[in-house]
Amino acid sequence: MSSFDVFQIGEVKIDQDSYYIEIYESHILGLRHIEKFGHIIVLWWISMRNTPKDRATLLVTPPRLTNPVETGVFSSRSPSRPNPIGLTKVKLLKVENNKLFVDRIDALDGTPVLDIKPYLPGDSVSLIDIRLPEWFESLKD
Amino acid sequence: MSSFDVFQIGEVKIDQDSYYIEIYESHILGLRHIEKFGHIIVLWWISMRNTPKDRATLLVTPPRLTNPVETGVFSSRSPSRPNPIGLTKVKLLKVENNKLFVDRIDALDGTPVLDIKPYLPGDSVSLIDIRLPEWFESLKD
Repeated sequence: MSSFDVFQIGEVKIDQDSYYIEIYESHILGLRHIEKFGHIIVLWWISMRNTPKDRATLLVTPPRLTNPVETGVFSSRSPSRPNPIGLTKVKLLKVENNKLFVDRIDALDGTPVLDIKPYLPGDSVSLIDIRLPEWFESLKD
Repeated sequence: MSSFDVFQIGEVKIDQDSYYIEIYESHILGLRHIEKFGHIIVLWWISMRNTPKDRATLLVTPPRLTNPVETGVFSSRSPSRPNPIGLTKVKLLKVENNKLFVDRIDALDGTPVLDIKPYLPGDSVSLIDIRLPEWFESLKD
Protein backbone atom coordinates (compact mmCIF):
# COMPACT_ATOMS: atom_id res chain seq x y z
CA MET A 1 0.00 0.00 0.00
CA SER A 2 1.43 3.33 -1.07
CA SER A 3 1.63 6.23 1.31
CA PHE A 4 1.73 9.94 0.56
CA ASP A 5 2.65 13.15 2.26
CA VAL A 6 0.25 16.01 3.00
CA PHE A 7 1.08 19.26 4.75
CA GLN A 8 -0.64 22.00 6.63
CA ILE A 9 -1.63 25.12 4.68
CA GLY A 10 -3.39 26.87 7.56
CA GLU A 11 -5.37 26.24 10.69
CA VAL A 12 -8.80 26.45 12.26
CA LYS A 13 -9.25 29.31 14.72
CA ILE A 14 -12.02 29.57 17.25
CA ASP A 15 -12.11 33.00 18.83
CA GLN A 16 -15.00 33.56 21.21
CA ASP A 17 -18.07 33.57 18.98
CA SER A 18 -16.28 33.53 15.63
CA TYR A 19 -14.89 30.65 13.64
CA TYR A 20 -12.34 31.23 10.94
CA ILE A 21 -9.73 29.48 8.88
CA GLU A 22 -6.38 31.17 8.74
CA ILE A 23 -4.36 30.36 5.64
CA TYR A 24 -0.59 30.78 5.92
CA GLU A 25 0.97 33.75 4.15
CA SER A 26 2.85 31.33 1.88
CA HIS A 27 -0.49 30.18 0.40
CA ILE A 28 -2.56 33.36 0.45
CA LEU A 29 -2.39 33.76 -3.33
CA GLY A 30 -4.44 30.57 -3.62
CA LEU A 31 -7.40 32.40 -2.03
CA ARG A 32 -7.95 34.80 -4.94
CA HIS A 33 -11.74 35.14 -5.62
CA ILE A 34 -12.72 32.84 -2.76
CA GLU A 35 -15.14 35.55 -1.52
CA LYS A 36 -17.26 34.98 -4.62
CA PHE A 37 -18.36 31.59 -3.30
CA GLY A 38 -21.18 31.14 -0.80
CA HIS A 39 -19.94 27.84 0.64
CA ILE A 40 -16.62 26.05 0.83
CA ILE A 41 -15.48 22.53 1.68
CA VAL A 42 -12.72 22.37 4.27
CA LEU A 43 -10.42 19.37 4.56
CA TRP A 44 -8.46 19.18 7.77
CA TRP A 45 -6.21 16.82 9.66
CA ILE A 46 -7.84 15.22 12.70
CA SER A 47 -4.66 15.43 14.79
CA MET A 48 -6.12 13.93 17.93
CA ARG A 49 -6.99 10.72 16.10
CA ASN A 50 -3.64 10.34 14.38
CA THR A 51 -2.73 7.35 16.52
CA PRO A 52 -2.07 3.75 15.45
CA LYS A 53 -5.16 2.61 17.37
CA ASP A 54 -7.50 5.17 15.82
CA ARG A 55 -6.09 4.57 12.36
CA ALA A 56 -6.65 0.83 12.71
CA THR A 57 -10.32 1.35 13.68
CA LEU A 58 -12.71 -0.19 11.14
CA LEU A 59 -15.93 -0.49 13.17
CA VAL A 60 -17.54 2.30 15.18
CA THR A 61 -20.76 3.01 17.03
CA PRO A 62 -22.12 6.41 16.00
CA PRO A 63 -23.03 8.60 19.01
CA ARG A 64 -26.47 9.93 19.94
CA LEU A 65 -28.44 7.07 18.43
CA THR A 66 -31.63 5.80 20.04
CA ASN A 67 -30.64 2.27 19.09
CA PRO A 68 -26.82 2.08 18.92
CA VAL A 69 -25.42 0.10 16.00
CA GLU A 70 -21.88 -0.96 15.18
CA THR A 71 -21.10 0.10 11.64
CA GLY A 72 -18.13 0.47 9.29
CA VAL A 73 -15.93 3.59 9.50
CA PHE A 74 -16.57 4.23 5.80
CA SER A 75 -20.30 4.24 6.58
CA SER A 76 -19.77 6.87 9.28
CA ARG A 77 -18.17 10.24 9.78
CA SER A 78 -16.22 9.03 12.79
CA PRO A 79 -12.96 10.94 13.39
CA SER A 80 -11.24 7.58 14.05
CA ARG A 81 -10.50 6.25 10.58
CA PRO A 82 -7.55 4.98 8.53
CA ASN A 83 -6.80 8.43 7.10
CA PRO A 84 -7.97 11.02 9.64
CA ILE A 85 -9.05 13.64 7.12
CA GLY A 86 -12.02 15.69 8.30
CA LEU A 87 -14.43 17.19 5.79
CA THR A 88 -17.02 19.89 6.41
CA LYS A 89 -19.11 22.04 4.20
CA VAL A 90 -19.35 25.51 5.70
CA LYS A 91 -20.96 28.80 4.79
CA LEU A 92 -18.43 31.50 3.99
CA LEU A 93 -19.49 34.61 5.89
CA LYS A 94 -16.64 37.00 5.02
CA VAL A 95 -13.02 37.07 3.97
CA GLU A 96 -10.40 39.35 5.52
CA ASN A 97 -6.99 38.87 3.92
CA ASN A 98 -5.94 35.34 4.90
CA LYS A 99 -8.90 34.74 7.23
CA LEU A 100 -12.02 32.93 6.06
CA PHE A 101 -14.87 33.50 8.51
CA VAL A 102 -17.34 30.64 8.50
CA ASP A 103 -20.65 29.84 10.17
CA ARG A 104 -19.39 26.80 12.08
CA ILE A 105 -16.78 24.08 11.96
CA ASP A 106 -16.65 20.77 13.76
CA ALA A 107 -12.91 20.98 14.41
CA LEU A 108 -10.96 22.23 17.41
CA ASP A 109 -8.99 25.48 17.64
CA GLY A 110 -5.57 24.99 16.06
CA THR A 111 -6.60 22.06 13.85
CA PRO A 112 -4.34 21.83 10.75
CA VAL A 113 -6.11 22.66 7.48
CA LEU A 114 -5.07 20.68 4.37
CA ASP A 115 -7.24 22.10 1.61
CA ILE A 116 -10.09 24.47 0.77
CA LYS A 117 -12.38 23.72 -2.16
CA PRO A 118 -15.25 25.82 -3.49
CA TYR A 119 -18.69 24.21 -3.13
CA LEU A 120 -20.08 23.62 -6.62
CA PRO A 121 -23.51 22.48 -7.82
CA GLY A 122 -22.13 18.96 -8.41
CA ASP A 123 -21.53 18.62 -4.65
CA SER A 124 -25.23 18.98 -3.92
CA VAL A 125 -27.81 16.23 -3.47
CA SER A 126 -31.36 17.33 -2.80
CA LEU A 127 -32.61 16.30 0.62
CA ILE A 128 -35.33 14.07 -0.81
CA ASP A 129 -32.75 12.10 -2.79
CA ILE A 130 -30.43 11.39 0.14
CA ARG A 131 -30.77 7.78 1.24
CA LEU A 132 -29.63 6.90 4.77
CA PRO A 133 -29.76 3.86 7.05
CA GLU A 134 -32.72 3.84 9.40
CA TRP A 135 -30.55 4.91 12.37
CA PHE A 136 -29.57 8.15 10.64
CA GLU A 137 -33.03 9.06 9.35
CA SER A 138 -33.62 11.38 12.28
CA LEU A 139 -30.78 13.60 11.01
CA LYS A 140 -32.92 14.50 8.02
CA ASP A 141 -35.26 16.62 10.13
CA MET B 1 4.43 23.63 8.61
CA SER B 2 3.64 20.13 9.81
CA SER B 3 3.28 17.28 7.39
CA PHE B 4 1.33 14.05 7.76
CA ASP B 5 1.17 10.65 6.21
CA VAL B 6 -1.82 9.20 4.36
CA PHE B 7 -2.06 5.79 2.74
CA GLN B 8 -4.04 4.03 0.10
CA ILE B 9 -7.03 1.95 1.22
CA GLY B 10 -8.18 0.98 -2.26
CA GLU B 11 -8.31 2.16 -5.83
CA VAL B 12 -10.55 3.45 -8.57
CA LYS B 13 -11.35 0.92 -11.30
CA ILE B 14 -12.75 1.78 -14.69
CA ASP B 15 -13.85 -1.32 -16.53
CA GLN B 16 -15.54 -0.66 -19.86
CA ASP B 17 -18.83 0.98 -18.92
CA SER B 18 -18.62 0.48 -15.16
CA TYR B 19 -16.90 2.52 -12.52
CA TYR B 20 -16.15 1.08 -9.15
CA ILE B 21 -14.00 1.58 -6.10
CA GLU B 22 -12.18 -1.48 -4.88
CA ILE B 23 -11.34 -1.43 -1.19
CA TYR B 24 -8.42 -3.59 -0.09
CA GLU B 25 -9.23 -6.79 1.82
CA SER B 26 -7.43 -5.32 4.86
CA HIS B 27 -10.11 -2.60 5.09
CA ILE B 28 -13.25 -4.39 3.96
CA LEU B 29 -14.71 -4.45 7.48
CA GLY B 30 -14.95 -0.66 7.29
CA LEU B 31 -17.59 -1.00 4.55
CA ARG B 32 -20.23 -2.57 6.79
CA HIS B 33 -23.68 -1.01 5.99
CA ILE B 34 -22.31 1.20 3.20
CA GLU B 35 -25.05 -0.14 0.89
CA LYS B 36 -27.62 1.67 3.01
CA PHE B 37 -26.41 5.03 1.72
CA GLY B 38 -27.52 6.48 -1.60
CA HIS B 39 -24.42 8.65 -2.13
CA ILE B 40 -20.86 8.64 -0.89
CA ILE B 41 -17.96 11.09 -0.90
CA VAL B 42 -14.72 9.65 -2.25
CA LEU B 43 -11.35 11.17 -1.36
CA TRP B 44 -8.51 10.08 -3.59
CA TRP B 45 -4.89 10.89 -4.27
CA ILE B 46 -4.30 12.78 -7.53
CA SER B 47 -1.08 10.87 -8.28
CA MET B 48 -0.38 12.58 -11.60
CA ARG B 49 -0.22 15.97 -9.89
CA ASN B 50 1.99 14.87 -7.04
CA THR B 51 4.94 16.87 -8.36
CA PRO B 52 6.77 19.81 -6.77
CA LYS B 53 5.57 22.08 -9.59
CA ASP B 54 1.90 21.10 -9.29
CA ARG B 55 2.03 21.30 -5.51
CA ALA B 56 3.49 24.80 -5.67
CA THR B 57 0.68 26.00 -7.97
CA LEU B 58 -1.44 28.73 -6.37
CA LEU B 59 -3.11 30.32 -9.40
CA VAL B 60 -4.97 28.43 -12.14
CA THR B 61 -7.20 29.16 -15.13
CA PRO B 62 -10.28 26.93 -15.03
CA PRO B 63 -10.93 25.14 -18.35
CA ARG B 64 -13.95 25.56 -20.63
CA LEU B 65 -14.72 29.14 -19.67
CA THR B 66 -16.06 31.59 -22.22
CA ASN B 67 -13.95 34.30 -20.64
CA PRO B 68 -10.90 32.67 -19.03
CA VAL B 69 -9.92 34.02 -15.63
CA GLU B 70 -6.90 33.36 -13.45
CA THR B 71 -8.10 32.40 -10.00
CA GLY B 72 -6.78 30.90 -6.76
CA VAL B 73 -6.41 27.12 -6.41
CA PHE B 74 -8.60 27.21 -3.31
CA SER B 75 -11.31 28.88 -5.44
CA SER B 76 -11.11 26.07 -7.97
CA ARG B 77 -11.26 22.30 -8.16
CA SER B 78 -8.00 22.16 -10.10
CA PRO B 79 -6.08 18.88 -9.64
CA SER B 80 -2.88 20.94 -9.28
CA ARG B 81 -2.96 22.10 -5.67
CA PRO B 82 -0.76 22.01 -2.56
CA ASN B 83 -2.32 18.77 -1.30
CA PRO B 84 -3.55 16.81 -4.33
CA ILE B 85 -6.59 15.28 -2.66
CA GLY B 86 -9.49 14.78 -5.05
CA LEU B 87 -13.07 14.85 -3.77
CA THR B 88 -16.17 13.67 -5.59
CA LYS B 89 -19.68 12.99 -4.51
CA VAL B 90 -20.97 9.92 -6.35
CA LYS B 91 -24.16 7.91 -6.43
CA LEU B 92 -23.72 4.43 -5.02
CA LEU B 93 -25.33 2.00 -7.47
CA LYS B 94 -24.53 -1.35 -5.85
CA VAL B 95 -22.05 -3.02 -3.53
CA GLU B 96 -20.47 -6.42 -4.21
CA ASN B 97 -18.12 -7.46 -1.43
CA ASN B 98 -15.23 -4.96 -1.58
CA LYS B 99 -16.44 -3.24 -4.78
CA LEU B 100 -18.51 -0.07 -4.68
CA PHE B 101 -20.15 0.54 -8.05
CA VAL B 102 -20.76 4.24 -8.69
CA ASP B 103 -22.40 6.31 -11.39
CA ARG B 104 -19.24 8.18 -12.40
CA ILE B 105 -15.91 9.35 -11.04
CA ASP B 106 -13.57 12.00 -12.32
CA ALA B 107 -10.43 9.97 -11.55
CA LEU B 108 -8.36 7.65 -13.72
CA ASP B 109 -8.25 3.86 -13.52
CA GLY B 110 -5.85 2.83 -10.75
CA THR B 111 -6.12 6.08 -8.79
CA PRO B 112 -5.37 5.53 -5.07
CA VAL B 113 -8.38 5.96 -2.79
CA LEU B 114 -7.79 7.50 0.66
CA ASP B 115 -11.22 7.57 2.27
CA ILE B 116 -14.92 6.92 1.75
CA LYS B 117 -17.49 8.95 3.68
CA PRO B 118 -21.26 8.62 3.63
CA TYR B 119 -23.11 11.62 2.18
CA LEU B 120 -25.22 13.14 4.93
CA PRO B 121 -27.89 15.87 4.86
CA GLY B 122 -25.35 18.36 6.27
CA ASP B 123 -23.29 18.02 3.08
CA SER B 124 -26.14 19.38 0.99
CA VAL B 125 -26.73 22.97 -0.12
CA SER B 126 -29.84 23.62 -2.18
CA LEU B 127 -29.05 24.77 -5.70
CA ILE B 128 -30.71 28.15 -5.18
CA ASP B 129 -28.46 28.85 -2.19
CA ILE B 130 -25.17 28.08 -3.95
CA ARG B 131 -23.31 31.30 -4.76
CA LEU B 132 -20.67 31.18 -7.51
CA PRO B 133 -18.49 33.67 -9.35
CA GLU B 134 -19.98 34.86 -12.64
CA TRP B 135 -17.64 32.62 -14.66
CA PHE B 136 -19.04 29.49 -13.02
CA GLU B 137 -22.70 30.46 -13.23
CA SER B 138 -23.20 28.38 -16.37
CA LEU B 139 -22.42 25.23 -14.34
CA LYS B 140 -25.70 25.77 -12.49
CA ASP B 141 -27.74 24.83 -15.56
